[in-house]
Amino acid sequence: MPDFTDKLRPSQPDGPTTLARERQQSKISVDELSRHLLSSDGFLERQARVLPILQREPMLSKEKQQNLSRPERFKLGLARAKLLRRLTDQHQWSHEDYKMAEYLVDDVSPYFLHMEMFVTTIREQASEAQRAYWLPLIEEWKIIGAYGQTELGHGSNVRGLELEARWDSRTKEFVLHSPTLTASKWWNGSLGRIANHSIVVAQLLLPKPGSPDQYVSHGPHPFIVQVRDMKTHQPLDGVVIGDIGPKYGYVTMDNAYMLFDNFRIPHSAMLCRYSSVNPETGAYTKPEQPALVYGSLTYVRANIVHHARLVLARAVTVAVRYTAIRRQFQDRDSDKSGPEMSVLDYPTVQIRILPLLATTFALHYTGLAMRSVYQTTRNDVEQGDFRSLAHMHSMSSGLKSLCTMLAADGIETCRRALGGHGFGGGSGLIQLNNDYLSKPTVEGDNWMITQQVAAYLIKKMTAAAKSPNTPGADKTEAGFKDFIRNKQSAGQRQSVHDVLNRDQDIVKSFGLRATALAYDVYEQRVLKKQSWNNLLIQLHKLSKAQSQSILVATFYEALSTDNTLPNSSKDIMWDLYRLFALHTMENEGYEFFRCNAVSQADLNNLPARVQDLMARIRPHAVKLVDSWMIPDYLLDSALGRYDGRVYEDLYNRAHRLNPLNSITFNPNYWEEEIVKGSGDNGSGILSKL
Amino acid sequence: MPDFTDKLRPSQPDGPTTLARERQQSKISVDELSRHLLSSDGFLERQARVLPILQREPMLSKEKQQNLSRPERFKLGLARAKLLRRLTDQHQWSHEDYKMAEYLVDDVSPYFLHMEMFVTTIREQASEAQRAYWLPLIEEWKIIGAYGQTELGHGSNVRGLELEARWDSRTKEFVLHSPTLTASKWWNGSLGRIANHSIVVAQLLLPKPGSPDQYVSHGPHPFIVQVRDMKTHQPLDGVVIGDIGPKYGYVTMDNAYMLFDNFRIPHSAMLCRYSSVNPETGAYTKPEQPALVYGSLTYVRANIVHHARLVLARAVTVAVRYTAIRRQFQDRDSDKSGPEMSVLDYPTVQIRILPLLATTFALHYTGLAMRSVYQTTRNDVEQGDFRSLAHMHSMSSGLKSLCTMLAADGIETCRRALGGHGFGGGSGLIQLNNDYLSKPTVEGDNWMITQQVAAYLIKKMTAAAKSPNTPGADKTEAGFKDFIRNKQSAGQRQSVHDVLNRDQDIVKSFGLRATALAYDVYEQRVLKKQSWNNLLIQLHKLSKAQSQSILVATFYEALSTDNTLPNSSKDIMWDLYRLFALHTMENEGYEFFRCNAVSQADLNNLPARVQDLMARIRPHAVKLVDSWMIPDYLLDSALGRYDGRVYEDLYNRAHRLNPLNSITFNPNYWEEEIVKGSGDNGSGILSKL
Repeated sequence: MPDFTDKLRPSQPDGPTTLARERQQSKISVDELSRHLLSSDGFLERQARVLPILQREPMLSKEKQQNLSRPERFKLGLARAKLLRRLTDQHQWSHEDYKMAEYLVDDVSPYFLHMEMFVTTIREQASEAQRAYWLPLIEEWKIIGAYGQTELGHGSNVRGLELEARWDSRTKEFVLHSPTLTASKWWNGSLGRIANHSIVVAQLLLPKPGSPDQYVSHGPHPFIVQVRDMKTHQPLDGVVIGDIGPKYGYVTMDNAYMLFDNFRIPHSAMLCRYSSVNPETGAYTKPEQPALVYGSLTYVRANIVHHARLVLARAVTVAVRYTAIRRQFQDRDSDKSGPEMSVLDYPTVQIRILPLLATTFALHYTGLAMRSVYQTTRNDVEQGDFRSLAHMHSMSSGLKSLCTMLAADGIETCRRALGGHGFGGGSGLIQLNNDYLSKPTVEGDNWMITQQVAAYLIKKMTAAAKSPNTPGADKTEAGFKDFIRNKQSAGQRQSVHDVLNRDQDIVKSFGLRATALAYDVYEQRVLKKQSWNNLLIQLHKLSKAQSQSILVATFYEALSTDNTLPNSSKDIMWDLYRLFALHTMENEGYEFFRCNAVSQADLNNLPARVQDLMARIRPHAVKLVDSWMIPDYLLDSALGRYDGRVYEDLYNRAHRLNPLNSITFNPNYWEEEIVKGSGDNGSGILSKL
Repeated sequence: MPDFTDKLRPSQPDGPTTLARERQQSKISVDELSRHLLSSDGFLERQARVLPILQREPMLSKEKQQNLSRPERFKLGLARAKLLRRLTDQHQWSHEDYKMAEYLVDDVSPYFLHMEMFVTTIREQASEAQRAYWLPLIEEWKIIGAYGQTELGHGSNVRGLELEARWDSRTKEFVLHSPTLTASKWWNGSLGRIANHSIVVAQLLLPKPGSPDQYVSHGPHPFIVQVRDMKTHQPLDGVVIGDIGPKYGYVTMDNAYMLFDNFRIPHSAMLCRYSSVNPETGAYTKPEQPALVYGSLTYVRANIVHHARLVLARAVTVAVRYTAIRRQFQDRDSDKSGPEMSVLDYPTVQIRILPLLATTFALHYTGLAMRSVYQTTRNDVEQGDFRSLAHMHSMSSGLKSLCTMLAADGIETCRRALGGHGFGGGSGLIQLNNDYLSKPTVEGDNWMITQQVAAYLIKKMTAAAKSPNTPGADKTEAGFKDFIRNKQSAGQRQSVHDVLNRDQDIVKSFGLRATALAYDVYEQRVLKKQSWNNLLIQLHKLSKAQSQSILVATFYEALSTDNTLPNSSKDIMWDLYRLFALHTMENEGYEFFRCNAVSQADLNNLPARVQDLMARIRPHAVKLVDSWMIPDYLLDSALGRYDGRVYEDLYNRAHRLNPLNSITFNPNYWEEEIVKGSGDNGSGILSKL
């Protein structure tokens, strides 16, 4: 309906004018920088090809989706997921093309577990015969599968799972049984409403040799189990399944609960590539190399690390563009005649956003490094060389913990920096935040898995301390030996680095602090025999220090050696490196000081240096976020859109797209009627409670 | 429908057993402690009286509300808000009783602004005649009003508002007009769908004396304006209003946009207690004491500070109870024969939750102190003494910023400490988090308002530096003079306090650090004439240090002087004081060190001391949260319920209360049908996009 607001425009200077000026004032070539960042694995080309196909589909419009209820939103998510698979067939998309589409649509697919953990587990842990039978059905989606490991009572401690798979030697079957409520499977994605099959991880109970009435547990093992009828889609007899209900995010995912009541499955249900049960004797064969069984977890963690840059880049893109456009107050020391200041020109806004902008690049180079370490290690392992497995496991655990924390906290920091409009649906950060807040917990809780990093470093330090004067087995050990030798010759004094003037010294300073913390922990645990639990907080700090050191070293390494970095952005990238590292150092100031990794004078100068660096990066901020090439369709943000039409878009969402505005309410409290003229005295809404 | 899961129980030891043990092991009298905390203003008695009335009402059941869409949720919110007003009439509730009901139901009422800012503004800024006319209509809810100040383009900078109220001297009317889109009112609660009247803040434009065709702005002024038809509830001609759409939280609040097209309002619409326009001459009378006009903002901030303790207490109650019950892994150094450990026994869980438990008490005593300062100042002001106004304004600004940050971040820290189940709807923290995340921004953005604290302290330091040897005008100034005299006699060296052994020295150490930062800033701004904007980050740090110092000092003061504190909890409260203060100090370690407020040896010992304190507090944690007396109805949390039936409740919510489980979906991607057997090929959901 036309009205007088149709002709209104925002006050000047408006968004498009402001962003044009911002883009003019920086020499960065966005094209070159984005190619440097995103073209090596075909990402940019793929995004450009897949995006227009998606934008043509009415079902993939995001305009009103925030108004839907959980059941409606789930229906929409399922409709979209089916459509994406049909589009995949139609356009003959590769798996990477499909993943791009999923990334852009930004709904967690109810088929996600089918396409990831379910098929991966069959590929990795099923025998050849099992693979031959199941993989064709899975790849054509004739069956839909999920991955049922976590239970109501146990997540991190997989060995504590309660669901039992008891071998019945008379019928040659396993009997799945949930002895308690806490044995219920829980959180298992794609299983609540969609899957008809599932990997089910259960305690393998086998008769004790010699006393067949007693059972011995051989620990959790995976089985493939049909759980719903293929015709009616109802759970089979003896199985109870459902969706666990509303969550913080992941609204389109049907996370499940599932219990079994003496439910029988055939011998062939047990995935038997690594371990098996002899159907005749009930004898158990255990895996030769247990680490391999959980290899896919490291893969998932490496991917989470690599993806974090794009998640944070989304939030930072919105924050930089909007705070450049948003104006509030004149400069207090000025004559107050000019326009109000861009809020991004206030150091108190910069200090929240620009270090995060720098973090996106730190995450990028570390994500690439993580993937390359994963590839190398996997190749080694396939050739029977397991030596680098522990290093990769430690690196992926520490980085998963730190990088998801940086991204999750970073989204919220950006959101708050947007002021009031950051609380509105037009920010584009609400679903992003709600969904991403799962990441600090899933695939290894961020606090728990830091123990794995510390355990690895303690082992390395112990080896180094045994013979500090021989060459180390690897880079980590060699560094530890250097540290120990320096310590012995100089007592507590280590050389203090010139972090304000030498970029490489920053790397050394981060390395020294991490190594000093590793030595402390080694001393406490190995020499002083302190209890593990008593040291947990220190172990966590060590993991954080080590992972920060990796981020800084990798960033430095990338800028020093990468020859695809365009000249137009080289010096700015170095400033971003310094900002990321020195801002991190400032936040952990006392720890660096205590480890003699930085001088007191330098520490005192850090705040001023950080502010200088921000002032240097500020003019390039808009072009730097442009280089991440996040399309408006993905951003779904009035505040962050490329063209800067912030206020027009906010108004359009409110005035033209908000279904609440088509309802006229009855405001009289003495009348029970809610919708004016409806005559419904509230029974409509009451029926949904 | 009965099934085999009905008879299943959680594994042992279950929640009730665990909580019974927890409650047995502490000597705290929950009754006494809760009376100490919450009985002075009748809070406990009121809660006990109001709660059962609410729990009888089906409309106030929270069981399924997370599944509703925004429009449904708004309808429910309105139905509840009307019901609460009817209950108020029926039970003759006082305003405090009503506020208790609102707090327990935990929906932001669509009438909230009517009952708060609308009526308050009329009371404070309307003339006697205006009050006599409007107040009876408002109190009987014959009209419903809102408060329209913030605009799409301006929030913090009130002087930058664009909506115009131009005086038409021929017709003796004001003409409200929105010249731009950014002049649209925005965020104004209760106005989007419900209110028919509103306070409208607009630039008062009056003809320039002598040249009646030119207009001069006299800045923003409040008007009372009817905006909707009393019969049809449609916006009046020349007014466009609506709800701005989905937000992070506040789902039951109809935050508005509103624009005017040359909309005429009578002379009597201008609230004229403090300033007025002569209807005959168009001459302007300005307020005598401009600070009074915005007095209600300080009141609102003081209330936010006071309320923060209960918000954080909710999150901490859930976190403590659940992590006491949740068990995961055996002690790594044990023989692993016993049950798994309560996760609250891991220091890495304690370090996230127990300092926040201590924070609830710090917030409590500071909230009381803030209210008392507000009362005293208000009394002073009413007797014409304005001297303490600046102090109160500074204190309320700094504490609003710090306390809402502590509470908002604290909720999320607790949520993550819950592990996977913290991401589920049964945590009880989702709506709490989503709603509370507005607080760091509203009523003065948490980063912006810290300037007001710093400006006050710079003024005080300037006065102190002028004559350091005379007595100070107040406590702050006297402290500053001490500091300056010490500085002059001892150079940079100040005495270092014994924070590990003397509770009072902790207060002194916090005071010294805040004062040292205030002196730094004074030096930069006043002596070295640095630009204000260049100093913003330092000003923010100063405000934080000052507010932390108030929290610590008030906590110490309360424990030292309060004679209602029960003996059974005295020593534990002192440990909580130490934990709050020393944990804060550890996090800001380098700043304390740089200010000579703590020795390096003590700083190095802080982590161990914090861990010791946590071990001492740990056995009392459950009873300490019990003392906050948050009823299960308010918690609405499977994880945090008083009886500990965590897993039974989670299962009940999933298996019996989740509407998604009554829908059978069609998982075949080659069929467009979503709900199995419905025949609907997706058009149902498409129509809502």
